[in-house]
Amino acid sequence: MKALILEEKGRLSLRDHVIEEEIGPRDVRIQLKVVGVCGSDVHYYTHGAIGPFVVRDPMILGHEAAGVVTEVGSDVHELKVGDRVCMEPGIPDPTSRATRLGLYNLDPAVRFWATPPVHGVLRPSVVHPADFTFKLPDNVSFEAAAMVEPLAVGVHAATKAHVKPGDIAVVIGAGPIGLVTVLAALAAGCARVIVTDIDDDKLGLAEKLGAVTPVNVRSRSLTEIVSAETDGWGVDIVFECSGNEKAAADVFDPLRPGGCVVYVGIPLEPITYDVAKAQVKEARVEHVFRYAHVFPRCIAMLASGAIDVSPLITRTFPFSESVKAFEYAASAPKGEVKIQINMQDQE
Amino acid sequence: MKALILEEKGRLSLRDHVIEEEIGPRDVRIQLKVVGVCGSDVHYYTHGAIGPFVVRDPMILGHEAAGVVTEVGSDVHELKVGDRVCMEPGIPDPTSRATRLGLYNLDPAVRFWATPPVHGVLRPSVVHPADFTFKLPDNVSFEAAAMVEPLAVGVHAATKAHVKPGDIAVVIGAGPIGLVTVLAALAAGCARVIVTDIDDDKLGLAEKLGAVTPVNVRSRSLTEIVSAETDGWGVDIVFECSGNEKAAADVFDPLRPGGCVVYVGIPLEPITYDVAKAQVKEARVEHVFRYAHVFPRCIAMLASGAIDVSPLITRTFPFSESVKAFEYAASAPKGEVKIQINMQDQE
Amino acid sequence: MKALILEEKGRLSLRDHVIEEEIGPRDVRIQLKVVGVCGSDVHYYTHGAIGPFVVRDPMILGHEAAGVVTEVGSDVHELKVGDRVCMEPGIPDPTSRATRLGLYNLDPAVRFWATPPVHGVLRPSVVHPADFTFKLPDNVSFEAAAMVEPLAVGVHAATKAHVKPGDIAVVIGAGPIGLVTVLAALAAGCARVIVTDIDDDKLGLAEKLGAVTPVNVRSRSLTEIVSAETDGWGVDIVFECSGNEKAAADVFDPLRPGGCVVYVGIPLEPITYDVAKAQVKEARVEHVFRYAHVFPRCIAMLASGAIDVSPLITRTFPFSESVKAFEYAASAPKGEVKIQINMQDQE
Amino acid sequence: MKALILEEKGRLSLRDHVIEEEIGPRDVRIQLKVVGVCGSDVHYYTHGAIGPFVVRDPMILGHEAAGVVTEVGSDVHELKVGDRVCMEPGIPDPTSRATRLGLYNLDPAVRFWATPPVHGVLRPSVVHPADFTFKLPDNVSFEAAAMVEPLAVGVHAATKAHVKPGDIAVVIGAGPIGLVTVLAALAAGCARVIVTDIDDDKLGLAEKLGAVTPVNVRSRSLTEIVSAETDGWGVDIVFECSGNEKAAADVFDPLRPGGCVVYVGIPLEPITYDVAKAQVKEARVEHVFRYAHVFPRCIAMLASGAIDVSPLITRTFPFSESVKAFEYAASAPKGEVKIQINMQDQE
Repeated sequence: MKALILEEKGRLSLRDHVIEEEIGPRDVRIQLKVVGVCGSDVHYYTHGAIGPFVVRDPMILGHEAAGVVTEVGSDVHELKVGDRVCMEPGIPDPTSRATRLGLYNLDPAVRFWATPPVHGVLRPSVVHPADFTFKLPDNVSFEAAAMVEPLAVGVHAATKAHVKPGDIAVVIGAGPIGLVTVLAALAAGCARVIVTDIDDDKLGLAEKLGAVTPVNVRSRSLTEIVSAETDGWGVDIVFECSGNEKAAADVFDPLRPGGCVVYVGIPLEPITYDVAKAQVKEARVEHVFRYAHVFPRCIAMLASGAIDVSPLITRTFPFSESVKAFEYAASAPKGEVKIQINMQDQE
Repeated sequence: MKALILEEKGRLSLRDHVIEEEIGPRDVRIQLKVVGVCGSDVHYYTHGAIGPFVVRDPMILGHEAAGVVTEVGSDVHELKVGDRVCMEPGIPDPTSRATRLGLYNLDPAVRFWATPPVHGVLRPSVVHPADFTFKLPDNVSFEAAAMVEPLAVGVHAATKAHVKPGDIAVVIGAGPIGLVTVLAALAAGCARVIVTDIDDDKLGLAEKLGAVTPVNVRSRSLTEIVSAETDGWGVDIVFECSGNEKAAADVFDPLRPGGCVVYVGIPLEPITYDVAKAQVKEARVEHVFRYAHVFPRCIAMLASGAIDVSPLITRTFPFSESVKAFEYAASAPKGEVKIQINMQDQE
Repeated sequence: MKALILEEKGRLSLRDHVIEEEIGPRDVRIQLKVVGVCGSDVHYYTHGAIGPFVVRDPMILGHEAAGVVTEVGSDVHELKVGDRVCMEPGIPDPTSRATRLGLYNLDPAVRFWATPPVHGVLRPSVVHPADFTFKLPDNVSFEAAAMVEPLAVGVHAATKAHVKPGDIAVVIGAGPIGLVTVLAALAAGCARVIVTDIDDDKLGLAEKLGAVTPVNVRSRSLTEIVSAETDGWGVDIVFECSGNEKAAADVFDPLRPGGCVVYVGIPLEPITYDVAKAQVKEARVEHVFRYAHVFPRCIAMLASGAIDVSPLITRTFPFSESVKAFEYAASAPKGEVKIQINMQDQE
Repeated sequence: MKALILEEKGRLSLRDHVIEEEIGPRDVRIQLKVVGVCGSDVHYYTHGAIGPFVVRDPMILGHEAAGVVTEVGSDVHELKVGDRVCMEPGIPDPTSRATRLGLYNLDPAVRFWATPPVHGVLRPSVVHPADFTFKLPDNVSFEAAAMVEPLAVGVHAATKAHVKPGDIAVVIGAGPIGLVTVLAALAAGCARVIVTDIDDDKLGLAEKLGAVTPVNVRSRSLTEIVSAETDGWGVDIVFECSGNEKAAADVFDPLRPGGCVVYVGIPLEPITYDVAKAQVKEARVEHVFRYAHVFPRCIAMLASGAIDVSPLITRTFPFSESVKAFEYAASAPKGEVKIQINMQDQE
């Protein structure tokens, strides 16, 4: 019963690690099938911390997960043994004020997989609340289901933006979060998405996702392209997904009067923000933190074909090679978007 | 210079009819290329009136139109001779209170093509305000552009519904307005649309438009299907597009708590409405009247491929056979959705 | 330890009735101080049922309540013994889908005081979840606090209407629910509220609540008055609080283009509803069912003086005379709005 | 026929200056009665410019104005000679895209009184479009009416915030714009407004406006007071009205999860903005630029008593002393909020 453990900053091991987890009345036990590698997992590996969250004890990594139910609690009726599922990695306090308002992602007490001191799920099985475990239709693969977690960020961002059919959007940054935001923006009604990055490989992948105009901002001016595509009016929405402080400061230039900016990426430092520029356009600025209530929506869109995440899964490792997977991911390989770990060799 | 004229109820003629129209500073003159046949055109032909609008003098029919600019007014800079365009058929009073609030479709002073006493556009050319004339990208055909008018109804309805990505919707009625609403709902983010009708041909066409579940309510229960597809929760949105009083009364049954109903079809008589049923679900009910501000959005979605209207254009007649086209349309032919008239033989 | 018990339709008794209630970890025990008499309490008394809810066993009445905390569960930290409080009478299933979305009032599993088979609170004490028990500031009396429950209906309606500052509203019906809606609409930003009724006493009381125009629709035309007050444009919002089928059918006449109707009153029968009339104005129609998340808001407005409910409390009976209070209330006394029962003589 | 003219930076004169203005069909001519002195007027006087707007030629000051109609254009039917009115000082291009969407304040072509090179209205009369001229009820004085322009900023901000009844707000800055925002926030439904400043005189005035908690941030911590007033949850809305870069950077600290920030004041320089702080609360940030569609709303609230602006009018000068009025205003007198100029001695 091995697990992928971050022993300390820079040191991973795949070793026996048994977590005894009792199953509560509203819990299910899940055998893991596919787990995606997130930038945050890699960052804990390479830096040992993200902001205030510091890895002080060995911690299992992984929070983008799909699997099969192997046991259900006494009060669980909506799931049964054998159900194929994916899971939300964050569990809020159900009685907190934020949770009761429906804003459970904003509950400061959320316990989130692979965020110290909470273990992740690169391990054989996990006990999880049924309320955050979602049944998969037959036509949604475990690989696609393990993409629901990052996809949920994009879908939540598009939901907050209140996309109207026929909007034109800019997505800044063609990394994993930028690309799921492109998928979500298109699915949510955007007629066209203009994507910026400085990596032509990623832009090339973005272009294959639909009505996408890729812009390498090393060589071309976003403002000029937006002006050309919108008759000088500007785009309806700017999704900032790069987390880059400079990019995050320039969001109002391509925006139309009355447009919306969504900050999805998390800049490490405070940015420079031109209030007066935002005022003359009366910009609405939304900020997203993870997601709430969108997993079932993502699954429905994968099932119906409204969204296809498969182009984003660029490489898969077996669980037995998961240390190697992380070393590879940490090398910032060109052209890779999502690396996943297939757990079937742990069975 | 012939025009298709409704001489009186039941009598059409294609005859010379010159309308001298001066071009104002903010107007353009447009040569018509394709004009769609709308149910309202046919209704004027067969009944001589729609509600309070009675055909008292010979009136040219047709209001779903695309063409080419042949002359521009002195203050028009955004369009030029040779531009391919489509047009909004309704012109509001620009100084009315509704128009100034951005609600120009609700201005009672709107003058609308082919609504007595205003002539329609089944004629060689028309003078129209530049503000309601929209340039077409090269990859949007005249046929598709003449579909923008009905499509705009569906897009306006989806916009009013505030579709969130991953919503499940019901569209009641698979006629032309139902089908454009299906297209709009899917483009606006619905994961799946359940469409009802009693005509299997229309339902078959609906099924080809995307993630559509067709339901012939003659033989199957909508409520049961909705319950099965949503685990008993109900759909997020019900678009009533049939105008049928019975169907319009039953909209709350398939709806989820907190869901939205949009009345798109116009019932001829007041309906029976169960306030208490709507209250226990706190339904939001929206009503749409034509559209506002959506033509550019429709064109953008046609250009990008987000929406494809071509499956809805089921038959085309040359202008010289336009009387025949109306006789055919008035016969309620099975399986026909949109009949269009190609104006090129009038040149 | 007496309680006011509806033995069966038409028969009340004030008799000993001990309910043994264990206190759970997230519960509090509350000594009742003031309980208001609601129309629904009176209706159970006079009719023995409301719709599907039938009184089959003796049931304690009363659900508009304020009191003092006398015991707290082991996990309750936000309340302590001696706290003055008021309570939400409906308790949802915390794990239901509606509750988790923040729509707990729409959870079909809600257990609501004095709704068969759930006992009400015209009794010495009750055990209640801390999550639905709200601490009162010193300057909010028990009498005012027992008004929070009906006030919450009005505040919820005004919240759903999305009142903008300077709106003009119509409130149909000057009964208790109409009058709390008047208070809520004014507090929520309405510049003026036009109130209709057929009872001059109630209209006279309404007029004292602020910028209110009373209209006795027996002698005056609402549509004419609205037209005069709004230059023919119509009002921004119509709150239907009468539950009268005829009044509920006529809501679109006084409405402005783009306006909002809120159905607050519950008509016993389905109404006649003119979809076409609602469409030419693109009315938004909201339906409210009780309230959610508004008790703390009501308490804050009572504490700050933004709302004063005291004019609505027109009569008080001691608990020992609570049978008489109900007999009086059932006699439909002119000019009475809210009758309350003071529990202090039960101590 | 004198006018108050800013000859150049720092030099004012009250001298004869006849502007020949023809009246168009949709215009009215208005005799000015009261004109308020705005901070921007004073800034042009003391600095000769605001950002890109530089006074290059003599310019009449004043844009907060009320008066009497003395002549109406041929197509004006809603106003007549003798009507008491107030006016919006900005006139957009009616055919611009922003205007047609209802966002006329965002039209870059707006011509705004007393913004170079457009003359203001500290002069006997002005010709103005009827669409931006609003009739006053008898019970709204010219003094109150001349306050509608600044009040409109606060009401627009409160409208953008989507205040819900019972919200708690912070208003940063107790200058004229801060105080009209306090009035608007209370009228729009806030139960309580916490106002910050460093001037006890202004805070003292703020406290008289209603349920206001004044906080002198020189001696007290806003965050602590907010925490105490909201049980550690935070306020629903923060209105930043100071334009101070430091204050504008700290807006997320007192905010609740899911709360809203409105930037009303215009910082001269870009600010430091902590995206991550805004994200963990999923703050919605709105930016306002002047106002749109709110003058009639302000007038309605003044007429009904929902808002009383009279406490903000702290001093009045006759027109003959208007140079002195500006010198006084430029001296930053303690405790003054709004200085007005009464035009009656120009008659």
